[in-house]
Amino acid sequence: MAKNAFYAQSGGVTAVINASACGVIETARKHSDQIGTVYAGRNGIIGALTEDLIDTGKESAENIAALRHTPSGGFGSCRFKLKSLEDNQREYERLIDVFKAHDIGYFFYNGGGDSADTCYKVSQLSEKMGFPVQAIHIPKTVDNDLPITDNCPGFGSVAKYIAVSALEASFDVRSMAKTSTKIFVLEVMGRHAGWIAAAGGLIEDHDIPVVILFPEVEFDKDRFMAEVDAKTKQYGFCTIIVSEGVHWPDGRFLAEQGTRDSFGHAQLGGAAPVVANMIKEALGYKFHWAVADYLQRAARHLASKSDVEQAYALGRAGVEMALQGHNSIMPTVDRLSSSPYKWEIGKAPLSEVANVEKMMPAEYISDDGFGITEACKEYLYPLIEGEDYPPYENGMPVYVTLKNESVAKKLPDFEL
Amino acid sequence: MAKNAFYAQSGGVTAVINASACGVIETARKHSDQIGTVYAGRNGIIGALTEDLIDTGKESAENIAALRHTPSGGFGSCRFKLKSLEDNQREYERLIDVFKAHDIGYFFYNGGGDSADTCYKVSQLSEKMGFPVQAIHIPKTVDNDLPITDNCPGFGSVAKYIAVSALEASFDVRSMAKTSTKIFVLEVMGRHAGWIAAAGGLIEDHDIPVVILFPEVEFDKDRFMAEVDAKTKQYGFCTIIVSEGVHWPDGRFLAEQGTRDSFGHAQLGGAAPVVANMIKEALGYKFHWAVADYLQRAARHLASKSDVEQAYALGRAGVEMALQGHNSIMPTVDRLSSSPYKWEIGKAPLSEVANVEKMMPAEYISDDGFGITEACKEYLYPLIEGEDYPPYENGMPVYVTLKNESVAKKLPDFEL
Repeated sequence: MAKNAFYAQSGGVTAVINASACGVIETARKHSDQIGTVYAGRNGIIGALTEDLIDTGKESAENIAALRHTPSGGFGSCRFKLKSLEDNQREYERLIDVFKAHDIGYFFYNGGGDSADTCYKVSQLSEKMGFPVQAIHIPKTVDNDLPITDNCPGFGSVAKYIAVSALEASFDVRSMAKTSTKIFVLEVMGRHAGWIAAAGGLIEDHDIPVVILFPEVEFDKDRFMAEVDAKTKQYGFCTIIVSEGVHWPDGRFLAEQGTRDSFGHAQLGGAAPVVANMIKEALGYKFHWAVADYLQRAARHLASKSDVEQAYALGRAGVEMALQGHNSIMPTVDRLSSSPYKWEIGKAPLSEVANVEKMMPAEYISDDGFGITEACKEYLYPLIEGEDYPPYENGMPVYVTLKNESVAKKLPDFEL
Repeated sequence: MAKNAFYAQSGGVTAVINASACGVIETARKHSDQIGTVYAGRNGIIGALTEDLIDTGKESAENIAALRHTPSGGFGSCRFKLKSLEDNQREYERLIDVFKAHDIGYFFYNGGGDSADTCYKVSQLSEKMGFPVQAIHIPKTVDNDLPITDNCPGFGSVAKYIAVSALEASFDVRSMAKTSTKIFVLEVMGRHAGWIAAAGGLIEDHDIPVVILFPEVEFDKDRFMAEVDAKTKQYGFCTIIVSEGVHWPDGRFLAEQGTRDSFGHAQLGGAAPVVANMIKEALGYKFHWAVADYLQRAARHLASKSDVEQAYALGRAGVEMALQGHNSIMPTVDRLSSSPYKWEIGKAPLSEVANVEKMMPAEYISDDGFGITEACKEYLYPLIEGEDYPPYENGMPVYVTLKNESVAKKLPDFEL
């Protein structure tokens, strides 16, 4: 008899994680002889632990198709890392119990590094516990830090959003620079890796002076000011892309300035206002700053077409690999050529994915540490290629909110 | 003989001010028997005062057409308000001198309230000085505060960007709220009027709990916290739209918190982090915040189709009205019906436009001061209707940078 499947979204959501969900569910539905129902975890893996399952079989084909163009996590996600097997075997055993109770033979986990690790452990433990589950990890992360795969779904769309937004704001500043704003500072995500900040560097190809502050490069205030001043004098204006993770040599983030409000309470701010004020103080230039925050990773209205296609294809490939009998693997994007852009789906064993973080190669950052190299641009351009607009109605995108009906519980409650 | 025309962009630029420029230049080119060359002011009115004129006749038809989908001010803009006629007749006389030297009979000024006033004075003074210039004001402002016209080009696209971005980020927060972020705060432009903040209120129609802080409503911390808490408890999350101009009853902006950095320097921040930290302190909810700043007014990639069409149509109408002999007027958008949306071009005498600020009607703000009414939605929806995407190449929008060749000077220098 056909086993059921379990699907869950993990960690920070993206503009295209639902496209992977769409790929999983549509492909599973095409193989109803081998896969019964796809159950989704409500709010990610917590839904599995608490037996809070969503019956995706209750959703119309139209709603599942609409996931492809809907940002966010349609079933809810969570920030919840399972402890190590040694420290908390109880949680892993509970997962297997829930899978057993609902006759789940396939585990599709859609996330980043942590979830790859969980996925790997589930496949090992289920084998040991005599209820083998095929565990497939579907990659997702705007941080673009998973190994083996050329890139991670979610990153391409953020990269496109940041590159386009930085270009547009730079055109704006250029118009105003004669009498007003000369400096525009845009803060982007990336606590450890500068992939997203690097995307801002693409505007250099549109004749925009840009200085990037990467988390990989220790902040050197004097060199930075000299660079900003030189570019502003040459062009009349300058755009600065600041990664949220930019930090001083001693490791302190620039965003942590020890600021206090009028009541003496510590005040959290962003790196962008700190850098902007620093420039004003050192060089006297009028500035504006923006912090994109969630807008960047949720911006489905400007998703990259290659990103959407890959997100869907990886979801589909995960199911197809499961049906071919694979276990404990992650489908990957393998780049065949950059220009023209060609890629195919590959696979990586989870043992080689779990707990490995892919950093930005040093050769992608220019020698002065403030820009990106041609090699980096060659890597980035294919990932932002093409547009994939959602449908609109009354001026607003038509994003789907699923019914998310619960599956009846069969087990006793579980304390998280 | 055909007189030349002068065109200048004024104040903060928008996603569609270049569409008005496109309408002016393309229409003038169609009437080359009556209008010679369109000269543009480099960096706005400063270009006229310093006789720094751009010969738009040197631009290809293709480049002028591309202005329609290019954000920012293609000829440069400035923040420079001419003093009153009494205080500084010298500047107005210089304008007339420059117009005379370059045989300029048409003055098209593309801006907000201040530029309408300048335009009005130029038409009066030129008459008096015996070199009559037909002065036409073409409306532009994201603040949407010009009188008589139903709306101002630039506003519709910002409104669309804020509504769509707030919706996308809200979907994101909704996915994460179970274990992580429950509050998302988005800061938008609007120091005096809450038009842009109001656009964020449209997400309520997508079942998103939203609380708006308008500059028109004095900030009441206790009532605000109660509202945020109630919505967060009911929905599990809450989105907050904060206008940059939100202020305490005593007039102090929320963004001015008297914060100091570790060196004791005053720190400028945004209203969003202040509000977010306040919520964390009062209610304990985890938050994220974003400040859209220039991204919102430059976001041509998500321009509203009705906004682009109106921006172009008002530029075209300005030229046509000039050719019909009109002077000292502003073409307007007159709304005929909201559903279906129908509008036509009207005209307003500059004497009635100059120095009049249109505020948001009280009946557009809900009784509790935290939301918008159905009347407000009926007003807003037509303005964000339709999409008008720019062309893309290599994943990036193809925005035009003009040659902007200078016209030879004929007059002595002028000290600003």
